[in-house]
Amino acid sequence: MAGYDWISLTTDYGLSDGFVAACHGAIARIAPSVRVIDVTHLVQPADVARGAAVLAQAVPHLPPAVHVAVVDPGVGTARRALAVEAERGLLVGPDNGLLTPAADALGGIRRAVALENRDWFAPAVSATFHGRDVFAPVAARLALGADLAAAGSTVDGRDLVRLPEPVVVVGDGWLEAEVLTVDRFGNVQLAAPGSTLDGLTGALRVSGMRAVRTNTFAEAGAGELIVYVDSADRVALAINGGRAVVALGVTPGDVLRISTT
Amino acid sequence: MAGYDWISLTTDYGLSDGFVAACHGAIARIAPSVRVIDVTHLVQPADVARGAAVLAQAVPHLPPAVHVAVVDPGVGTARRALAVEAERGLLVGPDNGLLTPAADALGGIRRAVALENRDWFAPAVSATFHGRDVFAPVAARLALGADLAAAGSTVDGRDLVRLPEPVVVVGDGWLEAEVLTVDRFGNVQLAAPGSTLDGLTGALRVSGMRAVRTNTFAEAGAGELIVYVDSADRVALAINGGRAVVALGVTPGDVLRISTT
Amino acid sequence: MAGYDWISLTTDYGLSDGFVAACHGAIARIAPSVRVIDVTHLVQPADVARGAAVLAQAVPHLPPAVHVAVVDPGVGTARRALAVEAERGLLVGPDNGLLTPAADALGGIRRAVALENRDWFAPAVSATFHGRDVFAPVAARLALGADLAAAGSTVDGRDLVRLPEPVVVVGDGWLEAEVLTVDRFGNVQLAAPGSTLDGLTGALRVSGMRAVRTNTFAEAGAGELIVYVDSADRVALAINGGRAVVALGVTPGDVLRISTT
Repeated sequence: MAGYDWISLTTDYGLSDGFVAACHGAIARIAPSVRVIDVTHLVQPADVARGAAVLAQAVPHLPPAVHVAVVDPGVGTARRALAVEAERGLLVGPDNGLLTPAADALGGIRRAVALENRDWFAPAVSATFHGRDVFAPVAARLALGADLAAAGSTVDGRDLVRLPEPVVVVGDGWLEAEVLTVDRFGNVQLAAPGSTLDGLTGALRVSGMRAVRTNTFAEAGAGELIVYVDSADRVALAINGGRAVVALGVTPGDVLRISTT
Repeated sequence: MAGYDWISLTTDYGLSDGFVAACHGAIARIAPSVRVIDVTHLVQPADVARGAAVLAQAVPHLPPAVHVAVVDPGVGTARRALAVEAERGLLVGPDNGLLTPAADALGGIRRAVALENRDWFAPAVSATFHGRDVFAPVAARLALGADLAAAGSTVDGRDLVRLPEPVVVVGDGWLEAEVLTVDRFGNVQLAAPGSTLDGLTGALRVSGMRAVRTNTFAEAGAGELIVYVDSADRVALAINGGRAVVALGVTPGDVLRISTT
Repeated sequence: MAGYDWISLTTDYGLSDGFVAACHGAIARIAPSVRVIDVTHLVQPADVARGAAVLAQAVPHLPPAVHVAVVDPGVGTARRALAVEAERGLLVGPDNGLLTPAADALGGIRRAVALENRDWFAPAVSATFHGRDVFAPVAARLALGADLAAAGSTVDGRDLVRLPEPVVVVGDGWLEAEVLTVDRFGNVQLAAPGSTLDGLTGALRVSGMRAVRTNTFAEAGAGELIVYVDSADRVALAINGGRAVVALGVTPGDVLRISTT
């Protein structure tokens, strides 16, 4: 097999310990020519939904790669470890819903394998650090072109754990959608795709607050609430020079209503 | 053209989202052999002055590179996007004052171009993420050796937006200068170049507090306020084992007075 | 000499300034083909013990490398700058105890040299930033295969500064050990090696709290205090879905007692 020149890493390991470096090291020792792109390591501990959203939105913009993701509160238990072949890339991580949105974003699942071949793991597998001992070494071997089928037994892609679909309901002059993520700028991203805004023109209301529809932040006055389509093609809310998440007082999983006034 | 082996990235994107990875990805897909050095992504959101200062102090220590900087509250509006050729490197980013101090640090502006060639951008340019869709792809092409003139129309370097010059006034036995940055250690860097300290010997006062002039932190007693020339050749203030920024209660833009007692 | 393809970096420089990039730049300008793995740059300022612990636990998992570590409150003073040859890699940094645990983890000290050859440093060495001006350039030259003996005069490895050994006492049915580190998840790592838990079975007590011995986090009930052997083969404490450091109210250097009830 042709393999991949790149591996991406998405974890909740943080940046203050040596966990991320140990994963880089595991890759470098097996596949020194492969290069690593860190997506983020600041997923909140055990926040699988957040990890899944960040990963799914990043992968379309990365080069062809083996994407390793580890947000894994069930590490060491019977939860399966997976390698998933999507139309445009491979994904490696726990079977807890973390990988499937990214697989969809990469064209859908073609094949999935439960990681069982211990020859591909670190010589001694710890109970609590499968990023270093299982996922990174397996990804390095796959990047080198090893055959996915040799990693373990095939799993039906429809049997993978999936997170619940976020709420998105579109009506005449209104839209209700779940908050998917909040970014560094305090911008609030909804699960609704950008096209769901098409019918919502003129003055808008978001949970009782007045809002204006714009394409950019600076089009609105300072402090004004903005409804826009973000760079991942999702409906999102921002405040020019402020933090929409504070003004709206929401958190991922909450449902917001946008409507014409 | 010869091109560059390196691209540097300086942004306010933070490290908890996938924004930085998307920029890395945009570069890797166009110029896979180019390597990236991350200067910082923790510039406070929209703090152009801070981004400009960090960038200008970092570039002299980097290898020859295309330096991409994105602190861009006006993204998507009529503000120009630029590529600037300096004596020793290229700079790519918005025309809001972010790039010019670094251009000066790299020997001065030789040529500037407004980025207008949409063939160099991502196929679909979002309204709010030009780091991924404009600046990174343009930088990747320039690193590969593409001709700067093909990026857009030439702009007079004297017409670029510049931040106001920070206050630095030197008198007989005193110095007043604006706080430029505060670093991780709480050390307070003034805009004044190191040489402005030459006349200030013996016991000193900084905004009413007693201070001692040293070359290193550990030369002073614990808790003592130190005046020194920092590693960017600026006058700076520190406290051995403490945080000068807390003791002085200052923030960038404030003016401090250093005087002989 | 054969040299090294990799350099690792461990510092307290933080990620919001350009300090880390300046070190990357110093390496790239001397040894452009060498690749860098960042262990962490978020060691608390001047916390030499924390830096030493993170470094020592990371290096066994990295490829053969020159490991640069800089947590250096005595920068610019008479404290020695070192290059240490261990059985499996080189270490470069200040002589303040930061390097020796990692040297032990890499098979022990074979040779140590005080960095005195100014031809290997930056042309102008600042008083406060030896990471950029001394340690990174020296590491780059060593990675290229330069002879360690040319870096300076040999130092007796037994004369290097060492941190005090952390407390570990094992009795019949109990164990007392110092807290070594606390990780991002709030898990509390003790200095005691994993084998010291062998005699402690059944119900346990940790500083008066009830605890259960498991191999993984998810084996315990939510909120339950867990005693386990962590991925660095140390005795550690965690709470499934919580933060053990908060429940126990400890900080590195404190001593905890684990006993059978």
